[in-house]
Amino acid sequence: MAPLTLHEDPRSGNCYKIKLIAALLGLPLATRQYDITRGETRTPDFLANINANGRIPVLQIGEGPEARFLPESNAACWYLAHGSALIPAERIAQADMLRWMFFEQYNHEPNVATLRFWMSILGEANLSDDQRRILPYKREAGEAALALMDRHLADKAFFCGAAPTLADIALFAYTHIAHEGGFALGDYRHVTGWIARIEGLPGFVPMD
Amino acid sequence: MAPLTLHEDPRSGNCYKIKLIAALLGLPLATRQYDITRGETRTPDFLANINANGRIPVLQIGEGPEARFLPESNAACWYLAHGSALIPAERIAQADMLRWMFFEQYNHEPNVATLRFWMSILGEANLSDDQRRILPYKREAGEAALALMDRHLADKAFFCGAAPTLADIALFAYTHIAHEGGFALGDYRHVTGWIARIEGLPGFVPMD
Repeated sequence: MAPLTLHEDPRSGNCYKIKLIAALLGLPLATRQYDITRGETRTPDFLANINANGRIPVLQIGEGPEARFLPESNAACWYLAHGSALIPAERIAQADMLRWMFFEQYNHEPNVATLRFWMSILGEANLSDDQRRILPYKREAGEAALALMDRHLADKAFFCGAAPTLADIALFAYTHIAHEGGFALGDYRHVTGWIARIEGLPGFVPMD
Repeated sequence: MAPLTLHEDPRSGNCYKIKLIAALLGLPLATRQYDITRGETRTPDFLANINANGRIPVLQIGEGPEARFLPESNAACWYLAHGSALIPAERIAQADMLRWMFFEQYNHEPNVATLRFWMSILGEANLSDDQRRILPYKREAGEAALALMDRHLADKAFFCGAAPTLADIALFAYTHIAHEGGFALGDYRHVTGWIARIEGLPGFVPMD
């Protein structure tokens, strides 16, 4: 396989997803680090050569003029896990896994991850008036996402059944640090049991 | 194949994606309609039996006690197009297609589709103070998404190259009606050329 390099900020759960999958699958993965709070992913060089969308993570596949750059954390997860047991082969199971990955990016990340970024990385004292105003909506939506996950996990070991898939890794990344955004994970007992199962997977690596 | 039923609101671009893919692939698709502005996807029956997340679209696969319910528009697209030319087979091409589908749900839909919902379905006069306050941010983010698409399409017929994929259908759904949210599509010439190419695909059906 072509050499793989992750363009990342180590504080990002979206980047951690990719590192965790590489670890679970035993894939070598180099990293290059950027500080998103200093605008290091919005420089002209980054926008022209790494990601026109100005965001990390970006998975770089290969090196030199032939290198390909793959933004969007869940797309990079898909690339890495191609052909592995982390992607079920059956048609409906595959679609159901993607369902939870789209849920993660639409209902979970913009609320659970954003509040953690605001509270623990930017710092609550540094929020703008408009951020303070929409914070309660994001809190409510984040709680709703966690509650939905908790109900779903009441009778399942993992999101798509008895075995872990990319859906679990995608949702684990920002869920297991949701307390850094002020969410009380202890309110979600099935979620905390599932977190422990993921942390027990062979090859698991913690976020930092 | 098991009978397919789309639980939908016909005004939703996310629902239209699924109907357009079924039309392009010649798949029969029954529909059952709900009015999201009347809360018809938040009833106890809908939450218990169709989608605990209270949203449409949901693709129902099969009928009776064995039926499966698949939320998330892009996951339903994936299910329908399984094994077709709308999903490239090669590993990196498949991941690149998913990259644009995650971009659509993260950077595009929450801005371009939400403004169209606010301006053309709810009506601008009915917006809350908080909605009015965040409207400029959504406008700016929507313009950024359209500008990124326009630059990407400058040298390509479709998002992943010479042939259409699910990425094009996912992005087409809310882009081609972005003017209903106050976006000036004429500012994006590569996007308007791409819209015309999609409207020319064999089997294409318009939104209504």
